[in-house]
Amino acid sequence: MSLIEDLKWRYATKKYDPTKKVSQEDIDKIVEAARLAPTSSGLQQFRVLVVSNQEIKEKLAPSSLNPEVMVDCSHVLVFAAWDRYTAERIDTIYDRITDERGLPRGRFGSYTDKIKNLYLNETAEENFIHTARQSYIGFALAIAQAAELRIDSTPAEGFNNALVDELLDLKSLGLKSVTLLYLGYRDENDWLAPMKKVRNPVEDFVIEYK
Amino acid sequence: MSLIEDLKWRYATKKYDPTKKVSQEDIDKIVEAARLAPTSSGLQQFRVLVVSNQEIKEKLAPSSLNPEVMVDCSHVLVFAAWDRYTAERIDTIYDRITDERGLPRGRFGSYTDKIKNLYLNETAEENFIHTARQSYIGFALAIAQAAELRIDSTPAEGFNNALVDELLDLKSLGLKSVTLLYLGYRDENDWLAPMKKVRNPVEDFVIEYK
Repeated sequence: MSLIEDLKWRYATKKYDPTKKVSQEDIDKIVEAARLAPTSSGLQQFRVLVVSNQEIKEKLAPSSLNPEVMVDCSHVLVFAAWDRYTAERIDTIYDRITDERGLPRGRFGSYTDKIKNLYLNETAEENFIHTARQSYIGFALAIAQAAELRIDSTPAEGFNNALVDELLDLKSLGLKSVTLLYLGYRDENDWLAPMKKVRNPVEDFVIEYK
Repeated sequence: MSLIEDLKWRYATKKYDPTKKVSQEDIDKIVEAARLAPTSSGLQQFRVLVVSNQEIKEKLAPSSLNPEVMVDCSHVLVFAAWDRYTAERIDTIYDRITDERGLPRGRFGSYTDKIKNLYLNETAEENFIHTARQSYIGFALAIAQAAELRIDSTPAEGFNNALVDELLDLKSLGLKSVTLLYLGYRDENDWLAPMKKVRNPVEDFVIEYK
């Protein structure tokens, strides 16, 4: 197995078999891949909310462009990013980094001063443009991890973020939803499953400066 | 090997051995992982520019927060996203999708009308917020692919985007730079290599709704 084979195998599943559930062990691996994601300045500006409760999935479903996909899948992962940077958030991360590395707190003080000066002088909207981008790194790695485990998934945007944020009370966590990832096992009648994966040809996708 | 092991192995390399070069075969695999990335509506709103030319790397270096890392690494990948959506771009992709799947052109017309109506009524700045996000999916998969191959890499933001865009004439390609990925082989004296990877504990990172 290789990442490329895994990526060729996966597709954005459009119909799940509602009787098949992803094991907790596999969910833990998918979340772990996202947790290991590199992020800007190592700040891990996002969290993952894992919804397997059927009642909550059904409440969330009207937010989605494909409500039946959300209802039928096994788990819904919500990738949610920090609504803004704060000095406390940055310090908490860097205190953990220094503590776990056996370094004195403040060892990276000039660096954290620099990033505080940058982000704390931006609006919350500008901050969120940046934190949301970071969440896509974890999102991509979760998609890849699901594929490695041969678990079907559907990456989703275009949902009603305000509704998801409200139902999961993300505001109180200082988070805003960015993407969804449905997980489960495909229904054998999913129309998209047999379709060819289409991508830009390599020669259009890459430009080399040798 | 597994994605999780690969992600645990990698770190943001701070010093490269300038005598060691990544093979073209490995570069092709890293680009291929990015090319296979899922993107919103399947539009592949980004491209990868691969710079191994030393003269160009040295011209790009002043744009970077770590110029010596850019100079010493083997290859610099520039992830650049569409500067805006256009009807032509969307149609080109969907014509390819229908052609390659043996479907009549226009088969997804109601869907492409919907996304055109959405994106073409936004500003270029709003478009770019969305296209740039997609590039992070490819960026993350390229990072993972490099790690699978045990090639060191450094994901980078915080560079002078305008300078990179100008030097590579990205405007004429309808692109804007988003992230950089340095690739190569670590110098044995890289200070960061022996340091512990620190992440938020699982219990802080994930919230489960069972």
